[in-house]
Amino acid sequence: MGLAFTPNSAVLASCGTDELVRMWKSADGTALGTLARLPDIPMDLAFSPDGTRLAVASKDDTITLWAVK
Amino acid sequence: MGLAFTPNSAVLASCGTDELVRMWKSADGTALGTLARLPDIPMDLAFSPDGTRLAVASKDDTITLWAVK
Amino acid sequence: MGLAFTPNSAVLASCGTDELVRMWKSADGTALGTLARLPDIPMDLAFSPDGTRLAVASKDDTITLWAVK
Amino acid sequence: MGLAFTPNSAVLASCGTDELVRMWKSADGTALGTLARLPDIPMDLAFSPDGTRLAVASKDDTITLWAVK
Repeated sequence: MGLAFTPNSAVLASCGTDELVRMWKSADGTALGTLARLPDIPMDLAFSPDGTRLAVASKDDTITLWAVK
Repeated sequence: MGLAFTPNSAVLASCGTDELVRMWKSADGTALGTLARLPDIPMDLAFSPDGTRLAVASKDDTITLWAVK
Repeated sequence: MGLAFTPNSAVLASCGTDELVRMWKSADGTALGTLARLPDIPMDLAFSPDGTRLAVASKDDTITLWAVK
Repeated sequence: MGLAFTPNSAVLASCGTDELVRMWKSADGTALGTLARLPDIPMDLAFSPDGTRLAVASKDDTITLWAVK
């Protein structure tokens, strides 16, 4: 479980016990969509400092890495 | 449960098992007030890098987003 | 439980189930000393971005704030 | 359990319940290798802001510090 803003502050990513990673518009909280379901409960997530990657660590030790559009 | 400083280091935000988010003056620890009660125990919180937003993830997967004054 | 480097990368602070916050020299891992015992198990710690403050959140919802020398 | 990118965004480090710290290439998720086994389950990890050190806090309160190549 956790949350992280993109380096440019425009988007917030969150992950929860529903095993989904969600994206939100920082300006007004609009839901921007959901990334593919994770293999297990996400424990931590982080954007790369350059904002091009999002990584999520799941409870089963799987690491999932996305290229950020 | 967690804590985060604003990017300008002036304010510390903390959240705990009492389901409240509290703000503190970094310089001397003065309590600056409490944000509205959360729907469940907060698990993580973060300021946007530009310091304009504060986000909290609660145990029930709710994300709460504030505009920082 | 957690760890954080100072913004200038010179020092690492860590907190654990022994309710102590310890400081380490990043260059070679030398122990630099221990801050006063916390009221309960520390859950998270963070340096302010300007490096002048260290904050720790304990399990009993206490926030402890130090001026960093 | 946790993950962290290097300050230059090139590498992702992750730690999990298998007591290993793994390194991944951010660009395409290629596994870059595994650091020595930790004394207990890792709870948190962080790179120093200058990217020269990686620190891991284990459940037994051990702090492990690596010089990053």
